[in-house]
Amino acid sequence: MKCDKILMIISDGMPDRPIKELGMRTPLQAAKTPGFDRAVKEGAGGTMNIIAPGVVPGSDTAHLSLFGYDPFKYYSGRGPFEAAGVGIDCRPGDVAFRCNFATVDDKMRVVDRRAGRIKDGTKELADSISSMNIEGVEIIFKEATEHRAVLILRGDELDPRVTDVDPHEESAIIHECLPLVPEAEFTAKVVNKFVIESYKILMKNQVNLERASKGLPVANSILPRGAGILRTLEKFESRYGLKAGGIAGVALLKGVFRILGFDLINVKGATGGIDTDMSAKGEAALRNLDSYEFVTINIKAPDIAGHDGDSALKVKVIERMDAVISRILRDLPEDTLLVLLSDHSTPVSLRNHSADPVCIAMRGHGIRVDTVEKFDEISCKAGILTGLRGIELMQFMLGIMGRAEKFGA
Amino acid sequence: MKCDKILMIISDGMPDRPIKELGMRTPLQAAKTPGFDRAVKEGAGGTMNIIAPGVVPGSDTAHLSLFGYDPFKYYSGRGPFEAAGVGIDCRPGDVAFRCNFATVDDKMRVVDRRAGRIKDGTKELADSISSMNIEGVEIIFKEATEHRAVLILRGDELDPRVTDVDPHEESAIIHECLPLVPEAEFTAKVVNKFVIESYKILMKNQVNLERASKGLPVANSILPRGAGILRTLEKFESRYGLKAGGIAGVALLKGVFRILGFDLINVKGATGGIDTDMSAKGEAALRNLDSYEFVTINIKAPDIAGHDGDSALKVKVIERMDAVISRILRDLPEDTLLVLLSDHSTPVSLRNHSADPVCIAMRGHGIRVDTVEKFDEISCKAGILTGLRGIELMQFMLGIMGRAEKFGA
Repeated sequence: MKCDKILMIISDGMPDRPIKELGMRTPLQAAKTPGFDRAVKEGAGGTMNIIAPGVVPGSDTAHLSLFGYDPFKYYSGRGPFEAAGVGIDCRPGDVAFRCNFATVDDKMRVVDRRAGRIKDGTKELADSISSMNIEGVEIIFKEATEHRAVLILRGDELDPRVTDVDPHEESAIIHECLPLVPEAEFTAKVVNKFVIESYKILMKNQVNLERASKGLPVANSILPRGAGILRTLEKFESRYGLKAGGIAGVALLKGVFRILGFDLINVKGATGGIDTDMSAKGEAALRNLDSYEFVTINIKAPDIAGHDGDSALKVKVIERMDAVISRILRDLPEDTLLVLLSDHSTPVSLRNHSADPVCIAMRGHGIRVDTVEKFDEISCKAGILTGLRGIELMQFMLGIMGRAEKFGA
Repeated sequence: MKCDKILMIISDGMPDRPIKELGMRTPLQAAKTPGFDRAVKEGAGGTMNIIAPGVVPGSDTAHLSLFGYDPFKYYSGRGPFEAAGVGIDCRPGDVAFRCNFATVDDKMRVVDRRAGRIKDGTKELADSISSMNIEGVEIIFKEATEHRAVLILRGDELDPRVTDVDPHEESAIIHECLPLVPEAEFTAKVVNKFVIESYKILMKNQVNLERASKGLPVANSILPRGAGILRTLEKFESRYGLKAGGIAGVALLKGVFRILGFDLINVKGATGGIDTDMSAKGEAALRNLDSYEFVTINIKAPDIAGHDGDSALKVKVIERMDAVISRILRDLPEDTLLVLLSDHSTPVSLRNHSADPVCIAMRGHGIRVDTVEKFDEISCKAGILTGLRGIELMQFMLGIMGRAEKFGA
């Protein structure tokens, strides 16, 4: 009996550090996790560096690494992944940015970086500034969720090595886009012109006039950041021979999935928020194992609890996730390799990602069952998967499935 | 609560191998070490390769690696570090050697490689041969401790790829300096001329005439070895944002500290010898945590006991060090990450450095507390720091302190 399929569940930002309020335990140590524990007990455990020791992974670079794509080679900035997440495919040469709709005063000082977390009317606003042409460069602009949006520059001689317009804090004047290398001077000029032109147009837009009349912050400015280009890469299915489907709530990860050629599996109630319907995601994953050889779910909730610095919430979220794992273990087809891990740690004490290793459990035919019985940051260290790095994971799993090619004879 | 500072205590050459006279225990297993044990129990342990498995570190290459500077990139020979240790800053293009004052007979056969471990008069001897000019190359020569000295060649077209003049054994004829590559022919010629010229001058020096009249071995010859150039490197503070101070007795390590831009913290009684005043070093380290974000101490004594092949002495020295660790733990500020490790193993049975991994303990806010309770070569293996390499250590610690930059978004 061999495993023919993989179900990879990514508990975003779950690993943590000892926390005083939890009796110097990590949230994962403090939570009751019979599901995670069963998986590691019936299989193998480990702790791993997703990118390299001491390298703090972003969500995007971590997921690329987990799927076997070296982020040092394939990553140049977040823009193209965000764009793919809202359905825009970057072409070679495009430079993409993630943006916020923001409120600025007449001195271009940021009053609200999220324009009152604007929800309605962003499509009209985006349409009013998309399709313009600046110095021969085509502007593609599309709204995403709430105040978020993406900007694509399409034309010749563009270069992503430019600074952010977004000052990343309120009451600061918006930044001029500056070239980091001489080759990017033209790109910076186009970005700066776009920021000015779009301000003029947005100020007069009906949506904003109505917001102003209601006393709401107007979405009169666009703040681009995270410039990047899309690197050419071999799609996941062609590279590994596994048809892949991905479930995620947030646009960035949908973008990573789309760029790698995964089908997006839409799940009602999968929001990418703290209140996401995890069980629906789990059920959808089980169902889709009929159609795909590789199914992956990202659950963002523990990362959000980490960013919020809320240890009690993190414990609660982990226990909700654990129920999903228990559910999946009940009905998981015998031919499926189950992989539980995280893209990075998000310690409550840092309220941000950290380079601390993540824990991993793997269960299924072909896995050497080790002595680990508890799924946490310390217990897993004794497991046989310890030392594996993110970039090596896919190749390791192909080996477990008997799909890896022999080197030599 | 986060750690903002680092105190790194380097027990030089402490790890060892099982020794018959110690009941097949290592000195660290045989010694009573409540201080080291407390540190690892309250924090995390590990065993690590300072450079790479099977690579035997020198003191210089090990310390470079520990501070995050790849020795394969930044190290070309010991000379520039010894020179920096006695206060001479190499310039780009300089070739530096460490040297001994030695006694040779009229056939240039080495009678005493250390000229009777000469102590007095070396400044006069050095001054008499410094500042000469050979083939357009400026000679800078300076005495160090006892029979040791440094030689700098300053000029055009110099190349460090030459062999040692020092035959490294007594009753051998001193070696001719030979080029290892054609580009180093000129350098070898200058070195050989310097050896002959300095012999002529030293033979007539008043210090030597007096030594001869007292029946002491004359310091009539210079034996250069360890040629190297200084590679350009970014200073530690600029690279990591941590103001650093270093405490060491021996010139080589003072040199490493100076080259990386550490302030040298002078401690009365810190000799670099077996009888060094360890407690004074510990007290100085604690005191200087007010002024520096990174304080490091090297304690050479266990390495010396290893080189001497004296297991009982090594146990004794380790217990003396342990008292210092206990003392430090008593008053260590809460914001300080304590790191205990070694630069390499110096097994008593080899009387030399070995490639055996070293043990490490890390204690402070942000560290995941593991199950290790004893600080020794075997117990530490189960710890979560196992697998980390020397070169990755700084980046790992920046991550613990929440100072590492995110790669991606």
